[in-house]
Amino acid sequence: MNGADVVVRTLLSQGVDLCLANPGTSEMHFLAAVDANPGMRAVLALQENVATGAADGYARITGRPAATLLHLGPGLANGLSNLHNAARALSPVVNIVGDHAMDHHSYDAPLTSDIEGLSRTFSVSTRTISPGRGAAAQIEGAVADSLGIKPGVATVLLPADSAWSPADLPDTIAARAVRPETGIDPLAVRAAVDALCQPGAVLLLGYGGTRGQALVDAGRIAARTGAQLMAQTASPVTDRGAGTPALERLPYPLDLATARLAKVPVIVLAGSKAPVAFFAYPGKKSKLYAPHTHLLELSRPQDDTAAYLAAVAEECGAAPVAKPAGGAIPQIPTDRFDAAAVGAVLARLLPENCIFVDEGLTNGLPIFTATAHAAPHRWLQNMGGSIGFAAPMTIGCALAEKGTPVIAMIGDGSAMYTLQSLWTQAREQLHVVTLILANRTYNILKDEVRNLDLRNRGAAIQDMLSIDNPLLDFVKLAEGMGVPARRVDSTTGLQDALTTALKTKGPSLIEVTL
Amino acid sequence: MNGADVVVRTLLSQGVDLCLANPGTSEMHFLAAVDANPGMRAVLALQENVATGAADGYARITGRPAATLLHLGPGLANGLSNLHNAARALSPVVNIVGDHAMDHHSYDAPLTSDIEGLSRTFSVSTRTISPGRGAAAQIEGAVADSLGIKPGVATVLLPADSAWSPADLPDTIAARAVRPETGIDPLAVRAAVDALCQPGAVLLLGYGGTRGQALVDAGRIAARTGAQLMAQTASPVTDRGAGTPALERLPYPLDLATARLAKVPVIVLAGSKAPVAFFAYPGKKSKLYAPHTHLLELSRPQDDTAAYLAAVAEECGAAPVAKPAGGAIPQIPTDRFDAAAVGAVLARLLPENCIFVDEGLTNGLPIFTATAHAAPHRWLQNMGGSIGFAAPMTIGCALAEKGTPVIAMIGDGSAMYTLQSLWTQAREQLHVVTLILANRTYNILKDEVRNLDLRNRGAAIQDMLSIDNPLLDFVKLAEGMGVPARRVDSTTGLQDALTTALKTKGPSLIEVTL
Repeated sequence: MNGADVVVRTLLSQGVDLCLANPGTSEMHFLAAVDANPGMRAVLALQENVATGAADGYARITGRPAATLLHLGPGLANGLSNLHNAARALSPVVNIVGDHAMDHHSYDAPLTSDIEGLSRTFSVSTRTISPGRGAAAQIEGAVADSLGIKPGVATVLLPADSAWSPADLPDTIAARAVRPETGIDPLAVRAAVDALCQPGAVLLLGYGGTRGQALVDAGRIAARTGAQLMAQTASPVTDRGAGTPALERLPYPLDLATARLAKVPVIVLAGSKAPVAFFAYPGKKSKLYAPHTHLLELSRPQDDTAAYLAAVAEECGAAPVAKPAGGAIPQIPTDRFDAAAVGAVLARLLPENCIFVDEGLTNGLPIFTATAHAAPHRWLQNMGGSIGFAAPMTIGCALAEKGTPVIAMIGDGSAMYTLQSLWTQAREQLHVVTLILANRTYNILKDEVRNLDLRNRGAAIQDMLSIDNPLLDFVKLAEGMGVPARRVDSTTGLQDALTTALKTKGPSLIEVTL
Repeated sequence: MNGADVVVRTLLSQGVDLCLANPGTSEMHFLAAVDANPGMRAVLALQENVATGAADGYARITGRPAATLLHLGPGLANGLSNLHNAARALSPVVNIVGDHAMDHHSYDAPLTSDIEGLSRTFSVSTRTISPGRGAAAQIEGAVADSLGIKPGVATVLLPADSAWSPADLPDTIAARAVRPETGIDPLAVRAAVDALCQPGAVLLLGYGGTRGQALVDAGRIAARTGAQLMAQTASPVTDRGAGTPALERLPYPLDLATARLAKVPVIVLAGSKAPVAFFAYPGKKSKLYAPHTHLLELSRPQDDTAAYLAAVAEECGAAPVAKPAGGAIPQIPTDRFDAAAVGAVLARLLPENCIFVDEGLTNGLPIFTATAHAAPHRWLQNMGGSIGFAAPMTIGCALAEKGTPVIAMIGDGSAMYTLQSLWTQAREQLHVVTLILANRTYNILKDEVRNLDLRNRGAAIQDMLSIDNPLLDFVKLAEGMGVPARRVDSTTGLQDALTTALKTKGPSLIEVTL
């Protein structure tokens, strides 16, 4: 047995049985160990950001980490922006980075770089496995760190000589790591009830607050206290659709968000963070809430918000409520084809319990709104703001729940960051439907330009915000990676294409021309 | 005038007039300044590693830095692996990273990250521009750092409020930065002559040693002293083809390289580094030279190797030599279509003075060998080992020399890291021909597996090293990004396709099925 065997066996003993990989020479012993120790599934990505984004998706659906397998510092760098997104989503990830043999570092070979320095900028912990000893403890520690008080990316450097040198499993196998129980603070619960009873109070949900029973309890609390229910602009997973409490989302644009919160006397943070602007703008405040607004922190993103909301519901005497009757699904318009029309089609066709990944940017909100009363589904958003997260995320979601349809809507500009994801979808025959919302611009930047105090809006700005020259042909791009695709420019075309795609076993792509 | 105006004007005054960009909200004032201050060309990339790899290519051809424009920490992360390659190539790059407004950091908005920490892992310097002051000095400093004693990536963080706040140009404009003159050490020259006169001595060229007059002088030295002329396995730019001295290249595979150097008594390093293995292997030494071999450092990669070689030639009394007569171009085989056959076709068709970017990996050496006596051309290689460098590099090369044909050969696996480059080639109508060498595997890893002491070579290894399921269709992928493409599987097909492509004004792609 060598160090790589110990790593793979320890991962398996900790319940980590999926490895999202873009390996190189220094990772070959790890792959040999995957072959020698059955139970680990290795899935290949053509670029590292696909692997790391997939790990984020897997974690969001299962609550457990997958492993990555990346090649040295540059491989880590290539996967880093989706690790940033994963860290911001509090997604557990065991991020394994192969490294040169320890002695080889001093020769400054071409791929040598400061991997620890890179890792420390976003990891909850960075560990290095030494040759011949401690591999099991390091992996156990990394899995535990990824699932710690504040979950995130636990990075493990596996030098090549640590992988190939003889090593032994310890005599005792550590129990499988689980999130530590943090309990709840009864004083915070009591204070929240008082705050929520103030007229105009907002109960702002995030992270654990937008899931299942937590959301039901939040609905009961709102009914009992009169507080307004609202979600952060983005949440890792939101349970929604018919039968779930209606949940307003704090708008992304600074002016709209500020106006929405202007008269709110108190915001109770339930798994959410104090609402701040995504970007700063000249002469505008970063805080989205008014100077007179009180913030009351019931629970932080990493806390057990479900337990807190249950306690608040109990404390305020909230009655059980019937499932909301559900609202009307919007009519499909016949005279236009825009984001709202796409949303109306989706509202009819989203399969029950499907996973919906939202990288629709400017087109996202109308589609979110239109699908409020669709069949129950899970809605996944970008938590770190680095675009190119959705296509990789579909892979992790589909691997986490075999057979569950995964639908992604992605702006054309965003899709081009990590389009290689389509190939892995095809290779693994994942049930993913990718909707490319093709408006041929970085439209969100056009909105942002309006928010900025810009004196010049000349050719360079126009040029850098448009991606219509040349036109991207997503049908060809998808087919080039083995994913069947078609282009639609009408609601009937979209209905037909989406119906077909949902019946197709493997992946499909639909370019939606807006 | 605001800080962004000062930045752009100072870049222009320093001769930096190309900006390779993938901007976001925090970079809009920079773009407005590009519009307000004519002379800066902004070129859009769909992913950041395209922009940074292009900057490397531009620097290699011109010796001067281009600017990048990246969006916060994740944008920097996405471009980092090609910045690693650029740093290893000693390519000057002024790496501009937009950041949140300074005060916005404390709110921990989603895109907040440790940009300085990230930057320090690979930059020669990391600077942050403050609002209202010092922007010109920081940019002048960054340009000078990029062209310093050891050239490389000089990173400048431009917080949004530093961009939008009023600022002034200084009264005096700094002189345009140039590489500092380092002079030569006459004792090193004398010692090198003695060493080169030893029977079996090797003159190992790298960086400045593989260019123009330096190479001619190296040839004179070899003729005079009897030393063997050899180049590092990889060099940033090698002048080669008819009329240049024949230049053996140290092989990449460890066993071949070790065998080649086994009996060499002394290696004189002329712009090269001590030859070491790319990776370590169990039971094998990282040093490629024998324990009894002496190393003598004439000049380091960052030194003026041309001046050193001129001095050595003078010191040893090397006579001027006639241009080498040139050797035979290999026959085009009619019975097979492999890398050597591709090389034979290229040897006939490479246009004089073209730029050839080599990311052929396992197919690279036969093509390198076959083209030794082609028309004079420049050969560019990967210096940092992070794959996905070639397609971006074509953009920078083509922007550096308008009209010069740029030809890239790229393995199919490598091409998929940064294929978005094709879109920028089409957008800018660059004269680039991309040859995809499609063997449907990570073939270099198959070679590496043979070098490793692996007990298991099972399904996981086979699976992770093959990219034939599904097949990648590079014709569709190229056409999807606006680049005309065709597939060839014969020497006649390749000759025809390449002849047509070289006559085409904009980019073309040829998928070469091997």
